[in-house]
Amino acid sequence: MLRVTVWGENVHEQKNRVVAEVYPDTMHGTIAGFLNRAGGIAATTATLQEPEHGLTAERIAATDVLVWWGHAAHGDVADAVVDRVCDAVWGGMGMIFLHSAHFAKPFKRLMGAPCNLTWREAGERERLWVTSRSHPITAGLPDHFELEHEEMYGEPFGVPEPLETVFVSWFAGGEVFRSGLTWRRGAGNVFYFRPGHETYPTYHDANVQRVICNAVRWAHNPAMRIADPHAAPNVPVDRALESITERGPRLHHDGEAGYR
Amino acid sequence: MLRVTVWGENVHEQKNRVVAEVYPDTMHGTIAGFLNRAGGIAATTATLQEPEHGLTAERIAATDVLVWWGHAAHGDVADAVVDRVCDAVWGGMGMIFLHSAHFAKPFKRLMGAPCNLTWREAGERERLWVTSRSHPITAGLPDHFELEHEEMYGEPFGVPEPLETVFVSWFAGGEVFRSGLTWRRGAGNVFYFRPGHETYPTYHDANVQRVICNAVRWAHNPAMRIADPHAAPNVPVDRALESITERGPRLHHDGEAGYR
Amino acid sequence: MLRVTVWGENVHEQKNRVVAEVYPDTMHGTIAGFLNRAGGIAATTATLQEPEHGLTAERIAATDVLVWWGHAAHGDVADAVVDRVCDAVWGGMGMIFLHSAHFAKPFKRLMGAPCNLTWREAGERERLWVTSRSHPITAGLPDHFELEHEEMYGEPFGVPEPLETVFVSWFAGGEVFRSGLTWRRGAGNVFYFRPGHETYPTYHDANVQRVICNAVRWAHNPAMRIADPHAAPNVPVDRALESITERGPRLHHDGEAGYR
Amino acid sequence: MLRVTVWGENVHEQKNRVVAEVYPDTMHGTIAGFLNRAGGIAATTATLQEPEHGLTAERIAATDVLVWWGHAAHGDVADAVVDRVCDAVWGGMGMIFLHSAHFAKPFKRLMGAPCNLTWREAGERERLWVTSRSHPITAGLPDHFELEHEEMYGEPFGVPEPLETVFVSWFAGGEVFRSGLTWRRGAGNVFYFRPGHETYPTYHDANVQRVICNAVRWAHNPAMRIADPHAAPNVPVDRALESITERGPRLHHDGEAGYR
Repeated sequence: MLRVTVWGENVHEQKNRVVAEVYPDTMHGTIAGFLNRAGGIAATTATLQEPEHGLTAERIAATDVLVWWGHAAHGDVADAVVDRVCDAVWGGMGMIFLHSAHFAKPFKRLMGAPCNLTWREAGERERLWVTSRSHPITAGLPDHFELEHEEMYGEPFGVPEPLETVFVSWFAGGEVFRSGLTWRRGAGNVFYFRPGHETYPTYHDANVQRVICNAVRWAHNPAMRIADPHAAPNVPVDRALESITERGPRLHHDGEAGYR
Repeated sequence: MLRVTVWGENVHEQKNRVVAEVYPDTMHGTIAGFLNRAGGIAATTATLQEPEHGLTAERIAATDVLVWWGHAAHGDVADAVVDRVCDAVWGGMGMIFLHSAHFAKPFKRLMGAPCNLTWREAGERERLWVTSRSHPITAGLPDHFELEHEEMYGEPFGVPEPLETVFVSWFAGGEVFRSGLTWRRGAGNVFYFRPGHETYPTYHDANVQRVICNAVRWAHNPAMRIADPHAAPNVPVDRALESITERGPRLHHDGEAGYR
Repeated sequence: MLRVTVWGENVHEQKNRVVAEVYPDTMHGTIAGFLNRAGGIAATTATLQEPEHGLTAERIAATDVLVWWGHAAHGDVADAVVDRVCDAVWGGMGMIFLHSAHFAKPFKRLMGAPCNLTWREAGERERLWVTSRSHPITAGLPDHFELEHEEMYGEPFGVPEPLETVFVSWFAGGEVFRSGLTWRRGAGNVFYFRPGHETYPTYHDANVQRVICNAVRWAHNPAMRIADPHAAPNVPVDRALESITERGPRLHHDGEAGYR
Repeated sequence: MLRVTVWGENVHEQKNRVVAEVYPDTMHGTIAGFLNRAGGIAATTATLQEPEHGLTAERIAATDVLVWWGHAAHGDVADAVVDRVCDAVWGGMGMIFLHSAHFAKPFKRLMGAPCNLTWREAGERERLWVTSRSHPITAGLPDHFELEHEEMYGEPFGVPEPLETVFVSWFAGGEVFRSGLTWRRGAGNVFYFRPGHETYPTYHDANVQRVICNAVRWAHNPAMRIADPHAAPNVPVDRALESITERGPRLHHDGEAGYR
């Protein structure tokens, strides 16, 4: 079983009547629900309000793929948890960022870029087009699909060039957006997927659910998690693979750790 | 004139007799020196020990390309300066990271990855091979060149896939390393160049100097610096490019700033 | 002066009254015209009907950047000319493919992919969005611009992942398209730019003209053209950079050319 | 079962005593052998000498991943078979090119580049370094492994920038080479893997076998093969997803096929 943790900020579900009505099981609960029904996936949830936001070292170690939704409370996420999440990604954990998580701390950290965009909340039509034919994340999807009510996100999207552009969105108001993008960071596969404004029933949409299920499987790296993704080991001269003789002046002593 | 600031940590030059003898003008002074002799470039220096590490807002605003060398004191660089440098890169400033700057705070921030590697300080032979024919950064270079004494850096190099791999190094002790890599972050061009251990005369080498001069010109983005590279403007419904009618529930009020 | 050759199929201008009225100077003539007014560019034209399609070895050798427009007569382009053009690109010539040139022989050859798409000729509105902020090809452009009447091209666009996605188009009929894409092939920079259906006045549009002028400058590689971009030289044992001794069985004799 | 066809040129095995002794079961037979022992893979062979080189339309349709080794007889491969192979890749067939297949017709066609390199046949030591940590193609491998006797291939390797650089080789004679590279072409995953000179026992090496087994699994695209990877369908105005009215002059008639 692929072990997925769905992290939800869990703020609007508690405070906003509209959101609570659209997602009576919360957004993260809804997402974990359809993942659990997909087959081969065991999804659980974690939220901002839990100790360590529900993302303890043990929990992260037992997570193959982490799905992240946040919006109003990006700044409340503790830096220590962000460090832990990024270390896990670099070590091989897959990670899916949804919608407003474009401004989540771990996404900005992993991208090394501002991740900004333009936006409009008008319940307008979004149409997602597949731009990478037969990509695993598009399995079972038609060439395009529509979400009748969505928030608009517009280009330029301030992220690094992706490995692959999987979806591009059309909006009724005249904008476009690269809605599905893949990257690799360390040993971890990262996917950003645009739709998912909290006042619309996006995560109840069958095509959206399929994308997220596919993305979770795509992001999973079955290799053993790298214990220390920052390790920078010294290779002593007497263990060089080709015989060499030390020459010239040195700054470091034998076995010394490098500077960080 | 292309305005270049060469930032040097300036620690070993002051404390280590070997380094002081190899670089009597300091490393950053040496680099600024050959840049100034290259034509069309006005290079100055800044160091860790100056107020704000010499990288005030005014200085950064007047810098087209920033060259960075650091090693022993990465941790002493103030986070506020790192923020300023990264903002400038995202806004269009070019940036060249040299050698041990693979662990510099702004490089790790811009990469979104650990940037780790293996290493050995044995004064061994390094041979750099051009892997991208006729790339602007290789102008005037032969297909390969050698540095008789260098520190070894070995793969895997923990960085994201580059836009282009420009150099790959061979080491006498048996390792290889992707020594010249390009990325784009926001509007800024970023280049990492491997050689440059402080106890060897690498920055006196004509080919190395040529690479750095070429890289500075390549990294220069003549577009006007983006004032706020994080801006995420709301596009009101009544200013949509195609006429749309607002529908469905809303989370935000008109003209409200989005969450960060 | 940057030497540009604008290649035009020159079929519809001669046979179709509408096209002849929109482009009384022909399409290639129009493009060469605004390039010549841009400053620093010396543009001339070549057409399908000339001997060797106007692309003799001498002409190609004297071309820094080749701009290509074709549509109805892709199949009439001689393979020997396609070979010559591709060899020049691999050797360092820049190349811009416009609109229906997505199915031109040299484009398909350079891409190694089908380069297919969906299409509709309805004179609908196209809006191009800049997706790579401050990219040289976007210099002087707003964040988006419109073409009131254009042919629609829709995703999926059957090309390899580009180095950078510079423009994405929105169409009134509901499609999107990655309209500006860059690649490198050998030493040559390649740019595809979508707009330019022959029955609309696209090449009279100021923004389109600016993109093409920028693209020509971006594509120019000032390095000396590589004489034989296919060369695969043998490096004899006695000229190896590190001293090695020949070992084991051999298939080839000294100095023998490799198999192709 | 993943259906793999291993295509071998089968020339040297028949004519050269050394090769026949190293590979008494032929090279393609040896490769198919270890693939069949890997689990979950059903590998068969096809050779140049068979009708249609053993790659009939039926055979290709029943092949999930095609492995290709050729050297002396690249020119003897019929263009019609090359077309069929490339169409299958664009439609989703995975493809692995081995060693001297860098000059094979389908590889050059899929790359859109010269695919050239430097070479030396001296039985020298090659050491392959993993450059992409925990990439599926490196599963179960150490950080590096050695082949005591191999032909040298040197940079620059005339291929487009890959999606990912998975291996880089070190050679005793002083060269380096990007030995494992991935691309996507249409719906097909493509991997090039350098080692495999016919006079050395490379395909008997456990690490090489593991790479090829991993690569075959990585390259497999389970999506249904795209029937016509060149299709460029017209979308009539009355079937546009958003209601639009045809405007302006037209070149094409309703339902007309586009130009190729």
